[in-house]
Amino acid sequence: MGHLVTTGRTRAAVARSLIMDTAERLYATRGLAAVSIRQIGEAAGQRNKSAVQYHFSGRDALIKAILAEHAAAIERHRAAMACPEPALMTLTERVRHVVLPRIEHHIELGAPSWYGRFLAQVTVEPALREYAVQAHLNTPSLRRLYDALAAQDDEQGPAATRREDMARQLIVHMPAELEAELAREQPAAEVAAAAWRRLGADLVTAVTGLIDALRASSA
Amino acid sequence: MGHLVTTGRTRAAVARSLIMDTAERLYATRGLAAVSIRQIGEAAGQRNKSAVQYHFSGRDALIKAILAEHAAAIERHRAAMACPEPALMTLTERVRHVVLPRIEHHIELGAPSWYGRFLAQVTVEPALREYAVQAHLNTPSLRRLYDALAAQDDEQGPAATRREDMARQLIVHMPAELEAELAREQPAAEVAAAAWRRLGADLVTAVTGLIDALRASSA
Repeated sequence: MGHLVTTGRTRAAVARSLIMDTAERLYATRGLAAVSIRQIGEAAGQRNKSAVQYHFSGRDALIKAILAEHAAAIERHRAAMACPEPALMTLTERVRHVVLPRIEHHIELGAPSWYGRFLAQVTVEPALREYAVQAHLNTPSLRRLYDALAAQDDEQGPAATRREDMARQLIVHMPAELEAELAREQPAAEVAAAAWRRLGADLVTAVTGLIDALRASSA
Repeated sequence: MGHLVTTGRTRAAVARSLIMDTAERLYATRGLAAVSIRQIGEAAGQRNKSAVQYHFSGRDALIKAILAEHAAAIERHRAAMACPEPALMTLTERVRHVVLPRIEHHIELGAPSWYGRFLAQVTVEPALREYAVQAHLNTPSLRRLYDALAAQDDEQGPAATRREDMARQLIVHMPAELEAELAREQPAAEVAAAAWRRLGADLVTAVTGLIDALRASSA
């Protein structure tokens, strides 16, 4: 009996996971606009036409579940980084702690991956963008980092918000670009990993550079 | 006869313009995914269900027409800027010539506007993003600026592409954020114009800062 229940739950978990992977892939390659819930169910091999409705309550819950899964994986990479007390970190160290766990997550996903393009689309979709922001801000490590920054940063308000917004745009949209490029060119895994690390280093440099420049101009 | 033809063309031009404005507004506020061609026709007050098909050949042609109209307006602002020989411009001057005409366009559009959010969505939609890139690169003033940069920049290749990509992400996505904020808060026109100018100045500072930082790190 217990065994049957477990099997049932496992089968449901497999179906959920299959639907999530399929949705992410279709959204990433065709765009949120071009993909219906029913197409996702069919492409995921679900015979029941309401499979997506059954396993998730609808498109938004499905998208939230995908975001939460990636946020948790990124959180694990961040937890694994050597982390000084946030209040003692230099700007570069803080930017590294925001950026590099996402890069490691992309390397772990391997190729092809779809998360980067999926996230970029969700972020600009009016009804969905708040889910994307919350999925990441709600992870404990990022919350701790931002809280430390907020407590320490003497320059709060619009100038600080502007810097964070700009950093976020680069951190969300640049991985989507690289992911699309890797999907087209299909390089060997180690070449792809090197491209991700190069992007990570460039993002740390660029985000640190733009924050420094904005601070200097508003000082 | 000539008069009748003119009237017919004018009426068609009015319908086209109405459909374009409506499409832009609906896409910006609800997302590309949530708006059908038929809904656009209805919201634009077109009684014929195939009005959008009739005036444009479909969604993609409609989106291209909207992009082209804005690109032409931005081009007029750029042409009006005092412009030294591109090859003699400093980095800051070049960035100003890319960024500020878009900011002036947003100020001229007034509030509410939808172009910023529309463009951000089009840019991340796999089937559409090339239209958005081409609509802007095909304007003569921007073409001239980029050609001068390409001829002059000793550091071509992936590093230069990376810097341009990062600049583009900020220039596309930050106006979309401000536009959404202004749509929510509905400040007076002069307050909104000041917010656009502040964003323009911050974008010039940030883009110049990130390009300088990336150049220094790859030198």
